[in-house]
Amino acid sequence: MDPYEILLRDTLEGFLKEDCAFKDVTSSVIPPDKHGSAIIVAREAGVCAGLVEAGLVFSLTGCVLGISCKEGNPFKPGDSIASVTGKLASILSTERVALNLLMHLCGVATATRAFQERIDAVAGRGQCKIAATRKTTPGMRAMEKRAVMVAGGDPHRWSLDDMVLLKDTHRSYYNDVAHMVSVARNRVSFSKKIEVEVETTDDAIMAARAGADIIMLDNMPFSLMKTTMEKLEHEGLRQGIIVESSGNVTLDTVADHARTGVDIISTSAITLKAMPVDISLELV
Amino acid sequence: MDPYEILLRDTLEGFLKEDCAFKDVTSSVIPPDKHGSAIIVAREAGVCAGLVEAGLVFSLTGCVLGISCKEGNPFKPGDSIASVTGKLASILSTERVALNLLMHLCGVATATRAFQERIDAVAGRGQCKIAATRKTTPGMRAMEKRAVMVAGGDPHRWSLDDMVLLKDTHRSYYNDVAHMVSVARNRVSFSKKIEVEVETTDDAIMAARAGADIIMLDNMPFSLMKTTMEKLEHEGLRQGIIVESSGNVTLDTVADHARTGVDIISTSAITLKAMPVDISLELV
Amino acid sequence: MDPYEILLRDTLEGFLKEDCAFKDVTSSVIPPDKHGSAIIVAREAGVCAGLVEAGLVFSLTGCVLGISCKEGNPFKPGDSIASVTGKLASILSTERVALNLLMHLCGVATATRAFQERIDAVAGRGQCKIAATRKTTPGMRAMEKRAVMVAGGDPHRWSLDDMVLLKDTHRSYYNDVAHMVSVARNRVSFSKKIEVEVETTDDAIMAARAGADIIMLDNMPFSLMKTTMEKLEHEGLRQGIIVESSGNVTLDTVADHARTGVDIISTSAITLKAMPVDISLELV
Amino acid sequence: MDPYEILLRDTLEGFLKEDCAFKDVTSSVIPPDKHGSAIIVAREAGVCAGLVEAGLVFSLTGCVLGISCKEGNPFKPGDSIASVTGKLASILSTERVALNLLMHLCGVATATRAFQERIDAVAGRGQCKIAATRKTTPGMRAMEKRAVMVAGGDPHRWSLDDMVLLKDTHRSYYNDVAHMVSVARNRVSFSKKIEVEVETTDDAIMAARAGADIIMLDNMPFSLMKTTMEKLEHEGLRQGIIVESSGNVTLDTVADHARTGVDIISTSAITLKAMPVDISLELV
Amino acid sequence: MDPYEILLRDTLEGFLKEDCAFKDVTSSVIPPDKHGSAIIVAREAGVCAGLVEAGLVFSLTGCVLGISCKEGNPFKPGDSIASVTGKLASILSTERVALNLLMHLCGVATATRAFQERIDAVAGRGQCKIAATRKTTPGMRAMEKRAVMVAGGDPHRWSLDDMVLLKDTHRSYYNDVAHMVSVARNRVSFSKKIEVEVETTDDAIMAARAGADIIMLDNMPFSLMKTTMEKLEHEGLRQGIIVESSGNVTLDTVADHARTGVDIISTSAITLKAMPVDISLELV
Amino acid sequence: MDPYEILLRDTLEGFLKEDCAFKDVTSSVIPPDKHGSAIIVAREAGVCAGLVEAGLVFSLTGCVLGISCKEGNPFKPGDSIASVTGKLASILSTERVALNLLMHLCGVATATRAFQERIDAVAGRGQCKIAATRKTTPGMRAMEKRAVMVAGGDPHRWSLDDMVLLKDTHRSYYNDVAHMVSVARNRVSFSKKIEVEVETTDDAIMAARAGADIIMLDNMPFSLMKTTMEKLEHEGLRQGIIVESSGNVTLDTVADHARTGVDIISTSAITLKAMPVDISLELV
Repeated sequence: MDPYEILLRDTLEGFLKEDCAFKDVTSSVIPPDKHGSAIIVAREAGVCAGLVEAGLVFSLTGCVLGISCKEGNPFKPGDSIASVTGKLASILSTERVALNLLMHLCGVATATRAFQERIDAVAGRGQCKIAATRKTTPGMRAMEKRAVMVAGGDPHRWSLDDMVLLKDTHRSYYNDVAHMVSVARNRVSFSKKIEVEVETTDDAIMAARAGADIIMLDNMPFSLMKTTMEKLEHEGLRQGIIVESSGNVTLDTVADHARTGVDIISTSAITLKAMPVDISLELV
Repeated sequence: MDPYEILLRDTLEGFLKEDCAFKDVTSSVIPPDKHGSAIIVAREAGVCAGLVEAGLVFSLTGCVLGISCKEGNPFKPGDSIASVTGKLASILSTERVALNLLMHLCGVATATRAFQERIDAVAGRGQCKIAATRKTTPGMRAMEKRAVMVAGGDPHRWSLDDMVLLKDTHRSYYNDVAHMVSVARNRVSFSKKIEVEVETTDDAIMAARAGADIIMLDNMPFSLMKTTMEKLEHEGLRQGIIVESSGNVTLDTVADHARTGVDIISTSAITLKAMPVDISLELV
Repeated sequence: MDPYEILLRDTLEGFLKEDCAFKDVTSSVIPPDKHGSAIIVAREAGVCAGLVEAGLVFSLTGCVLGISCKEGNPFKPGDSIASVTGKLASILSTERVALNLLMHLCGVATATRAFQERIDAVAGRGQCKIAATRKTTPGMRAMEKRAVMVAGGDPHRWSLDDMVLLKDTHRSYYNDVAHMVSVARNRVSFSKKIEVEVETTDDAIMAARAGADIIMLDNMPFSLMKTTMEKLEHEGLRQGIIVESSGNVTLDTVADHARTGVDIISTSAITLKAMPVDISLELV
Repeated sequence: MDPYEILLRDTLEGFLKEDCAFKDVTSSVIPPDKHGSAIIVAREAGVCAGLVEAGLVFSLTGCVLGISCKEGNPFKPGDSIASVTGKLASILSTERVALNLLMHLCGVATATRAFQERIDAVAGRGQCKIAATRKTTPGMRAMEKRAVMVAGGDPHRWSLDDMVLLKDTHRSYYNDVAHMVSVARNRVSFSKKIEVEVETTDDAIMAARAGADIIMLDNMPFSLMKTTMEKLEHEGLRQGIIVESSGNVTLDTVADHARTGVDIISTSAITLKAMPVDISLELV
Repeated sequence: MDPYEILLRDTLEGFLKEDCAFKDVTSSVIPPDKHGSAIIVAREAGVCAGLVEAGLVFSLTGCVLGISCKEGNPFKPGDSIASVTGKLASILSTERVALNLLMHLCGVATATRAFQERIDAVAGRGQCKIAATRKTTPGMRAMEKRAVMVAGGDPHRWSLDDMVLLKDTHRSYYNDVAHMVSVARNRVSFSKKIEVEVETTDDAIMAARAGADIIMLDNMPFSLMKTTMEKLEHEGLRQGIIVESSGNVTLDTVADHARTGVDIISTSAITLKAMPVDISLELV
Repeated sequence: MDPYEILLRDTLEGFLKEDCAFKDVTSSVIPPDKHGSAIIVAREAGVCAGLVEAGLVFSLTGCVLGISCKEGNPFKPGDSIASVTGKLASILSTERVALNLLMHLCGVATATRAFQERIDAVAGRGQCKIAATRKTTPGMRAMEKRAVMVAGGDPHRWSLDDMVLLKDTHRSYYNDVAHMVSVARNRVSFSKKIEVEVETTDDAIMAARAGADIIMLDNMPFSLMKTTMEKLEHEGLRQGIIVESSGNVTLDTVADHARTGVDIISTSAITLKAMPVDISLELV
C-alpha cells in the first residue's frame, strides 16, 4: 500500500459505512458465495481519474479492480474504464460508493482538462496553468486536488497551513500592502510562499516590491490585467514573481484570462462545481 | 445540541482539519484577540439549506451564526442569509469550510425545489414528489438528504440497510419477478419495504401481485409508463402500491414523468449533480 | 473481506483494546514464538452464532478460526464449535474477547430459536416470527440482530432511521390515530414503513384505515388481541397489514401470542436479556 | 466533566450513532421546539447503577438528568430513579440508548448485591467479596466494573495489562508451579500482583511459598477447598496471601464458597450473565 | 475554542486516555467532591510554552488553568507559571499528562531561545533564525513547532506536503541539479517552495540559477560555507534566495554557522532532542 | 500481527498522517515504480529498541524491514541496525517517522541500560532494578515502557489504573499513614498493589505495618534511606515488602541509591528525558 492510500483508507471506509451501517438488505437474494465480474463503463466522454480511490474502495470489500483506461487519459461514451471481480454480493454492495467517487473525480479531471486545453490554445503549452482553489467538496480535498493534477492542472495550496494568501480582508488592517507583506514575512516560516490579492496596478507593483512571491489579480477587467502585467514587466518585477488571475473564470472567459499573460488561472469550476461524468457498472 | 448535530460533529471537525492540519498561516497578520462580524451573502438566487451544518462548523471554532433566511426559503442575489460573530481570525479560518458546505447544500435545495415546482405544475401539489437516490457526494449523504427534505423533496432510502431495491442485476438470478420478490420477503425483515425495478408492464403487474411495496419504472418511454399505470389501475393493483419513475430525469423531462401519474420521480440531479450556489462571506 | 466485516472491524479492535491497552503481562511466561491450537467447546446446549465475529477477532491477532458447527445449527454440551490455530500467546490474548462475543451471540441465537420453536408449534412454520426490538446491548446491535436472523428470527428495525414507530407518546399530540398517521406519511419518506402502536381495537381499525403498514398490539390481553384480529379481518383490513404483538412476551406466553394470529411477536428476551451460553477454549 | 466521563464519551456517542446514523424518522411528528420532561421508573426491584452513564448520554443530546435514587441504593418496583428534561424530540431519540444502559448496569449492580448479601450472611461483613471477572460484555467493561463497585463488589483486574493470572494453560509449560511463578516474577513489573490458579492443595502450598500474591482455587470441591485453606493456615502461609474461589458460583452455591474462608469469590454471573432490570421512561 | 485547540483536542484526549483507560484507582482516597487549587512551579530556568495545550488538557477534566507567565517569556527556578483550580481528584488525575506536556514544550522553547540568542549575538537580531526540522517527537509536531515559534524560532515545513526538499537521495537520479530542479518545478504546484540540499559551491550556484527558492548547505565546513555565500553574492544570486545551514548544529557551533551569513540554521536539537524542563504541581 | 502491534497501528498511522496529510510533494521527482533498498545505520553507540514499531511503520507503506541487531543488544557507531526494501518513494516518505521513533526508543533503551549497569556494579545482577515512571512522552507510553523492558528495566505502573500510589498529596487528608492505607485497601480491588510514598523512617514502618505492598522512599538523604532499610529489616518488615527509591536519580547518583539496598530505583531520566540516539537511513 502506497502512502496516499493509507491516508485515504479511513475516509473511504467511512464512505462505505455511510452507505451501510448494518447490512445490505437487498443482497440477501444473491447466493452469498457466488462470484462475479463487471465492467465500469463511461456513459459520457471525459478524462479518467479516481481509479486509485475506486480500486481502494473495492479492495476494502475483497474485490479487485483491473484498470483499462489510465488516469489522465480521455475516454469516449461506451468505453470500459475498468473491470471488477469478486464476490457478486460484495461488488453490488460496493458499486454505488465506487461509482459516486469515480463520477465526481472524473468530472473534476474532465473540467480541468477542458479549461487547460482552452488555455493551451492561446498561451502555448506549459505557459499557463489552470489551478484549483480551496473551494472543494468537504471531505474530498486530497482526492479532488489529485484529480486536478492527473488532468494537468495545478492543485494550488492544500490548506490554510500551506501558503500565505493575503486578501482584502487582511489588507483592511494595514495602511499599505508593503507593510502587510513585511509583517507576514516576519511572522511566517521562510518555507512558505506569500501571495497577495490585489485589485489595482499600484498594489500589484507594491506587493511585488515588498517581496510577495505571488500576485493574485482578483476580478480585474482584462484590460487592467494587461496593463498590470506590462507595468510589472516594465518595472523589472515580472521575473521571479508568479501572477495568478482569479474571479469569473469560465470555459468562455478562460482564454481571455490566459491572453493577459498570467501564469496561473484559478477557479472552483474544476472542483466544487465540476459536473460529474455518468459512469455505470455492468455485470458480465 | 440536537441529535442530528451530534451525528455530524465528527464529520464537520474532519472538514475543518482537512483545511488546517497545523495552523492557518495567513491569520498571523490579524491581531489574535480582534473580534469581528460578517454577513453571508447570496450571489445567485436559490433555496436555503445547510444553515444547521454551517452553524455547527462555526460553533466549533467559537463563532456564532445568526440566521436571516430560514432553511427551505428562497433567496435572491444579494440577500443576506446569515451573520457571523466571533474572533476575526476564527471567522476567517472557518469561512471556507462553512461556505463550501453552504454552497453545495443550497445547490441541493435549489435543484430540488426547481424539480418539485415543475412537478407540482402538472401533477398538483402533494401528488408526486421528486426524490433523491444513493448517488450522493461521498461523506455528505445525511446532509444532502436533509437539504432535499428542507426543499420539499423525498430523501428516498438512506443506505443499503434501509429498504430492498431489486434491480435487473438481482433479477438475472430468478426466472420470474414473483419468485424473486417472495425470496426477498422471506429473507428480509417485515420492517423493510421491497421495491422492484421493472422495464415491462408485465413485470410491473407481476411484481405488484407478488407483494412489492414499490414499483420502479426504470428508463421506460413515457407512453409505456402510461400504459403500465393504466394496467395497474385496471388490475386493481394501484391502491397500496407506490410507483416510482427513474432514468433520464432532467428539468426538461420531469413534467413528462409527472404526467404519467407516478408517485415518485427520482434523480441524482438534485444531489451528486446539483450545481453549487455562489455564496460569499463579507466582513462588516 | 466481506462488507459486514469491514463495518465490524473497528468495533472488534475496540474490544481487543478494551482488554489490553498496553500488553498482556501474563503471556510473558509463554515462549513468544510457540505455536498452538485449540478447540472452542460448548458447555451447554445452544444454537450457533457469532462465528463470523469471533473469526474476525482472531484474525486481527494473526490466528485462524476453523468452523466445526455452522451458524444457525444447534450444538450439544461438549460439542466442538470451532478450532483456532496461531501463536499460542496470541490465542491466549484473544481468547477472552472472542469467547465473550460467542457466549453472548450464541445466547441470542439460542433464545431466538427457543421462542421461534414455540411459535411454530402452534402457528405452523413460516406463519409468525419472533422479532428483536431496539432493546439491544449498546454497541452490539448489528451483531445481535445478525444472530437473531441466523437463528430464524426477524431483526425488526435496525435503528431510529429505519421505520416510523408511533407510540402512545406520539399519540398524545394528536386527537386521533388517523391524523397522526397522515402527518407521519407526509413528513417521512415513501421508502419507510409506518407502524402504529395501539391499545384498543378501535385504534387498530383506525390505524389500518389510515394507511399504517404495521399495527402493534401493545400489552393487550389475549382475548382482546383475538377480537382485534377478527375485527380487522371482518373489515377487510387484514390483507396487506402486518400485525405485531409486544409486551409480556416470555417462553411461557409466546404460544398464546402466536395463537392470536399475529404475524410478528417482538421481545427483548432474545437480545438484551438473552442469557449467554457457556463456551470455553481448550488448548490441544 | 469528570475524567471517567471523558473516557466514556466517545463510547456513548457511538451508542447514540448506532441507534441513529441519519435521523430519527419518527420524531418528525413531534413539534421540534416542544420541551418535555419524563421520569425514569423501575418496573422491578433492583440496585441502582448507570446513572452517570445515562446522565452523560442525555447530556450529549442537550437533555438534563436529575437523580432520584443514589447509585448503590436499592429501588422497588414503581420507584422513580431519575427525571429528564429537554426537547421532547431529543428525550425520545435518546430514551432507548439510555434505558438499555441503565437496564443492563442496574442488572449488574443488582446481581452483585444479591451475591454479596449471601456472602455477608455466612462470612460476616467485610470478610469476603464477590468479584467480577474478564467475562464482561464487549465494549462495556469499564461501566460494568463500575456498577460492580457501586454495589459493593470487587472489580478484579481491568484487563490483561493489570495483573498476572497464571492458569493451567501456562502451567503446562512448567514442571512445577514454583518455577512458573519465579519466571513470571522475573519477567513482569514489580508493580503487578501474581495470581496462580490451582486445582490441588499441594499446588496451592507451592504457589504460596513461591511468592504468589493470590491463589485461585479453581473448581475445587468445597471439602478440598476447606482442606486447602487449613493447610495454608497450618503452614503459616495464609497471612499476606489472598485466596480466591472460582467456578460454579451461583446464588445457590455462593454461601458454600464463602464458608470455606476464601477472601474473594469471582463469577461472570454479575457481569456478562447479569439479567437486566426492567426500567422505563414515562413522559410527564 | 480556537481552531488550533480543535485540532489538538483529540490528541490531548488520547493522552489522557493513555494514562487512564478505566479509572484512577488512587484518587479513591480523596473525597470526590473536594475542590482544590494548585500552582505549577518551575524547578529550573527556562522559556515558557505549552500553556495553551496544558490549559486545554485541564479543561477536558473540568479544571481551569490560570496563566502567570506568558508563553515566550523566561522563568526562573521557583517561579509560578500557572495555577489550576477544580475538583481535587480531577486535578490529580490530570496533573501528570499536563506536566509531561509542559516539561517537554518548555524544553523546546528553552532550547530554541538558547540557540537564537547565540545567533543574535553574532548575526544581529532578525538576520538569521534557528529553525526546526521534521525530526520531531512523533505525535507532537504541531505542538513542538508552535513552541519553537513562541520562542522566536522558525517552524520550517510542517510535513512532506509543505515544500519540496530535494536531497542527495533525489539527486542520485539526475545528472545535474538544474535538471532535477526543473523536473520538480514542473511536477509540483507553483504554491510550493523548492529547496535543494547541496554539498558543493558549484551545486549551490547551479541550484540557485535553476530557480531553487532555498539552498541548504548540508554539513559543509564553515570555510566552504563562507566561500559559497561569497560566490552566490558575486554571481548576483544572493538576492531572492534563502540559504539554510544544517548538520552538526550545537550550542557550541551555532555561532559559527551564523557567522557564515546564512539566513536559517536548522537543527533537531530544539525538538526531538530538546531536554525537558523540570516543572511540578503543588497543591495550595 | 501480534496483539501489541494492533494496539499500536492506529497510533503509528497517526504519526504517518502527521507527516503527510495530503501527499509527499518531493517524491514526485522519483519514478513511482522504482524499487529501492536502504540500511538503517547507527551514528552513535547505543542499545537497540523500537524495531517492532519501526517495522510496523514501514509495513504500513508496503516496505519490509529486515532486522540486523536484536532489540536489547548494544550497537556501535556505524553498525547497521536494520535494512528496508520497498518502493523507493515509499521508503523516503516513511523514513523520517520511522527514524524519529527509532532514535527516541533507542535513546530510552540506551539510558535504561546505562542506569542498570551502574546499579548492577554495586548491587549485583538481579538485586535492584531501574524503573520508569509515568513521566513519559505523551502518546508514546506503551512504546517507551517496552523499550525500558527490552533494555532490562522495569516499566513500573502503566497508568493511573494500574496500582495505587499514595503521595504526600493524599496523605494530607489523613492523620496517619495507617489510616490512609486501610482506606485505600477497602476502596480498591484486591488485584491492585498499594504503594506509599514516605519521607520519614517512622512513616515507612507504619506503612509497612499497615499492609502497603511497596514503600517509596522519596527524596530521602542516602543515610536516612539506609537507616530506614535497617529499621524495616530489624522490625521484620523487609520480607514481602518492595522498597523503591526516587528523587534526584542521575547516572552519578544511581549507585548511591543502589547501595542503600532498595529493590527499585525509579526515574524519568530513562523516558521523557532520555536523549535520542543518532540513527540515519542510507540508500544502497
